[in-house]
Amino acid sequence: MTHPFLDGLPDIPDELAAALAEPLIDHHVHGCFTVDVGRAAFEESLNEASPDPIPDFMTQFDSQLGFAVRRWCAPLLGLAPHATPDQYWARRAELGPVGVARALIPAAGVAEWLVDTGFSTDTLCTPTELASWSGGRTREVVRLESLAEALLADGVDADEYADALRARLADASIGGVAGAKTIAAYRCGFDIEWARPAEAAVVRALRGAGTGRLTDPTLVSFGVHEAADAGLPIQVHVGLGDRDLDLRRVDPLLLGPLLRQPAIARVPVLLLHCYPFHRAAGYLAQAFGNVHLDVGLAINHLGAGSAGLLAEALELAPFAKQLYSSDACGPPELHVLGALLWRRGMARVLGRWVRAGDWSAADAARVVRMIGAGNATRIYRS
Amino acid sequence: MTHPFLDGLPDIPDELAAALAEPLIDHHVHGCFTVDVGRAAFEESLNEASPDPIPDFMTQFDSQLGFAVRRWCAPLLGLAPHATPDQYWARRAELGPVGVARALIPAAGVAEWLVDTGFSTDTLCTPTELASWSGGRTREVVRLESLAEALLADGVDADEYADALRARLADASIGGVAGAKTIAAYRCGFDIEWARPAEAAVVRALRGAGTGRLTDPTLVSFGVHEAADAGLPIQVHVGLGDRDLDLRRVDPLLLGPLLRQPAIARVPVLLLHCYPFHRAAGYLAQAFGNVHLDVGLAINHLGAGSAGLLAEALELAPFAKQLYSSDACGPPELHVLGALLWRRGMARVLGRWVRAGDWSAADAARVVRMIGAGNATRIYRS
Amino acid sequence: MTHPFLDGLPDIPDELAAALAEPLIDHHVHGCFTVDVGRAAFEESLNEASPDPIPDFMTQFDSQLGFAVRRWCAPLLGLAPHATPDQYWARRAELGPVGVARALIPAAGVAEWLVDTGFSTDTLCTPTELASWSGGRTREVVRLESLAEALLADGVDADEYADALRARLADASIGGVAGAKTIAAYRCGFDIEWARPAEAAVVRALRGAGTGRLTDPTLVSFGVHEAADAGLPIQVHVGLGDRDLDLRRVDPLLLGPLLRQPAIARVPVLLLHCYPFHRAAGYLAQAFGNVHLDVGLAINHLGAGSAGLLAEALELAPFAKQLYSSDACGPPELHVLGALLWRRGMARVLGRWVRAGDWSAADAARVVRMIGAGNATRIYRS
Repeated sequence: MTHPFLDGLPDIPDELAAALAEPLIDHHVHGCFTVDVGRAAFEESLNEASPDPIPDFMTQFDSQLGFAVRRWCAPLLGLAPHATPDQYWARRAELGPVGVARALIPAAGVAEWLVDTGFSTDTLCTPTELASWSGGRTREVVRLESLAEALLADGVDADEYADALRARLADASIGGVAGAKTIAAYRCGFDIEWARPAEAAVVRALRGAGTGRLTDPTLVSFGVHEAADAGLPIQVHVGLGDRDLDLRRVDPLLLGPLLRQPAIARVPVLLLHCYPFHRAAGYLAQAFGNVHLDVGLAINHLGAGSAGLLAEALELAPFAKQLYSSDACGPPELHVLGALLWRRGMARVLGRWVRAGDWSAADAARVVRMIGAGNATRIYRS
Repeated sequence: MTHPFLDGLPDIPDELAAALAEPLIDHHVHGCFTVDVGRAAFEESLNEASPDPIPDFMTQFDSQLGFAVRRWCAPLLGLAPHATPDQYWARRAELGPVGVARALIPAAGVAEWLVDTGFSTDTLCTPTELASWSGGRTREVVRLESLAEALLADGVDADEYADALRARLADASIGGVAGAKTIAAYRCGFDIEWARPAEAAVVRALRGAGTGRLTDPTLVSFGVHEAADAGLPIQVHVGLGDRDLDLRRVDPLLLGPLLRQPAIARVPVLLLHCYPFHRAAGYLAQAFGNVHLDVGLAINHLGAGSAGLLAEALELAPFAKQLYSSDACGPPELHVLGALLWRRGMARVLGRWVRAGDWSAADAARVVRMIGAGNATRIYRS
Repeated sequence: MTHPFLDGLPDIPDELAAALAEPLIDHHVHGCFTVDVGRAAFEESLNEASPDPIPDFMTQFDSQLGFAVRRWCAPLLGLAPHATPDQYWARRAELGPVGVARALIPAAGVAEWLVDTGFSTDTLCTPTELASWSGGRTREVVRLESLAEALLADGVDADEYADALRARLADASIGGVAGAKTIAAYRCGFDIEWARPAEAAVVRALRGAGTGRLTDPTLVSFGVHEAADAGLPIQVHVGLGDRDLDLRRVDPLLLGPLLRQPAIARVPVLLLHCYPFHRAAGYLAQAFGNVHLDVGLAINHLGAGSAGLLAEALELAPFAKQLYSSDACGPPELHVLGALLWRRGMARVLGRWVRAGDWSAADAARVVRMIGAGNATRIYRS
């Protein structure tokens, strides 16, 4: 059995290759484009950190992610590996956005997508479309700040906010929502007071908050506590992201005071992305029984260099505490590359350890199954 | 000549293999278990960072360290490599704790152990036992905070404390103690005032300190200054450790003000562990003539991934400024794995450089001897 | 065609080898020794971080950089690879400082050197000499703090300082100066107010500043803003350096407030060295359209380990945002090793990706040309 993700790598045991080929659970993802966004916007969506146009002097194709798109997605669209950006873009235009999605998404080999629906635009597909195109299924992750903003936009009174939020989270928990996600990283950073806010403080904060973007740390913290009380696994955006976050303030080590809250210790906490703080995140995953991590998003952006990142992610965190995600958003290239690069990087890293006899092939296969799907199944009761 | 630590690695020159096989000095270690602690406590002792029980949903065997135990210690106990945890535990139970220690400890190939005796329980062997089982010898490293606590527990008066501490350190220095260790990391962090405290300030701090756990920064700093004045090498716990430390406050870069104290510059300073701040520690080892580092503890916990860590430790620090340690405590597996994984990682990293011609085999062998024992001999006058 | 920098590495495609052999632009460098500084001072110049003599118990040759000198520079001086330090030093003495420079500098394969002339002593060659010995050309980078200090030493009045600085920068910009460099890292750190200072504040700061070393953050910031207004690319020393900087205060993430200044966004910003914060620097190079980075200086100091650093530098930063530099200063060994180790490291890293099919050989060659010279040509209008 041959697998594209093994192309050009040293041989690995069949047992490990088979485990790598099994369906994944992508525990943190967004929708893919359903409309033609144009080449400029496409290139911008290959740059995670900058909100600006790609500078005139360069193309974002000239990056690890851009090279990975040309190497791995081009053949899925019927082109030669390493097709030029112009060839790639021309072929993409021929197929149209849904044609591209239908060509790429199934190649991810993902059986289940946990979709953060808090960031949605009319350019992104719905969870239903994603499920349909992939042949897999989807579950929703509720974004806490979006939920709070929706309540405020609905005109919920400050005195009724806590009950209303609780009711929504209870509904979510009952209604099959897989978990909750906080983007505290983007709103206030992690160096805030994480003790459960008194409800009077929440009311005061609401009165000062207005109805726009929720940035008040008291309200952010309150949302996280309420989600934990509702029994939902808590996903936390950590590290790498759009530059409107201050990377210094989203170091996972700043989450210590949150993780020490007894209420938080009762639910799984999932640190997402974590780059370049993934070693510190691995430490937290060893230090706290309920803390998990992934290196999603960064895998895509590191492209050919992502095997090194995966090796570092495998340092300190117990294997039951690691998960797979793509954090893909927009180009369906990201949905498939996340999976392909993860499989390829794991093949490279674990293959090396198995060849040298450090790990058995059986253990390597088992760890792949844990990180690829098993841990997510346990955490999200998938 | 074949060595287990080379199993499955590319060939390395005999000269390098021979140097790697020579006895080590483990310059920072604790005792090993002498009693059967039970499987749950055993697994907990494979997790450095968490004080909690291992969660029900996992086994700590599913970690780099757990895999290394099964791979490398199982054969030393008469099992096949990669024996299952159940097989391993059963065999361990047959042998009993002392039988396990006697089977494992000699395989470390350690000629001298510098034992931190400040953390002792009735479950850990004495330095004498460790020496006897290993066929090597031991010397003591005095833990400064434990020494201070002992004085306070003895009811030493605040006005007499400084003299009493000095007398103890003078005795230690004369009596063959190899060095002093501070666990400021666990007590107050590194972002404290490091100028020598006035004795009046020490007296004031003592009057506020009580007789329990010594956490007052003035007293911690005072102990370090007194140890330096006594001419003792100063070991400093840095980075990775039990989660009751705040990892952000034990970044070695925070030690700048300590290292700039003229009194401290007169004795060797040994930064222990350092992960994930080992690159910053390497910088300090280049920047300050008396600063050294090891990546002990982390080597064990990174298991098959520890070669990458060793490569990073070999980046900036001069080779005369690096040492070997295991920081083993509890399971004798840690005493042997520290040594085995260090030898194996060095074989992998230096072997690659020698094969490519970047380093000569003779230089590689020489660096192994320096880091493995020679530098410690110089520093501790072993 | 064989190239010394490929010795002992796995084969790489001719196309990639050819690109690596092409002339480089070293966009950040200093002069080399023209006088015999003696062996002690030579060894000290192999240690970037410490201002102290090398300790008696060691030689700085026992470091990655020292090993690289013996491996790669010895043959250029007619010795065997890995010549001993004594052999190397004897041969160096025979040739004399200019003989050594003439033997080594051309081997760098550098067509253009951008020389920071702000740090000059009578032991270092002039840009003209460097150009002559290398067969290449040089352009000047003006060090902003040195320029300001020269104005103050000339007795420029506080009220006339701003105009005088502007005039000098305008002259520089017109007169072929390639760019401006700030060593804010050494003077005040990055955690300062980076908004353009009001001219009244500048006048106040000048009245408090005296005529010595410029450390006032207002004046440092003012210099950077004026250089940007003059349209000059801004080089920023980041990370690794002499220990009189506080490494914690030169984390590039602290530059966020500077990079968000609209005036700064209009010129290229070049983050120099960056180690051990190179991953964070790569993030900034993705996040800000005008931000670039190199890992100069660290490549030399990491020697055989520098391929790992280059792989990490190639993670997140777009390829149009990376440059080559040596930051060589003093021993001409550093001028040639910077180039040789960069070529060798790129051969190792890109060669691996090409062999595995992740990158095409053509792309690898193209990226080498971009980072080796093309990006600098664009930025500095070379």
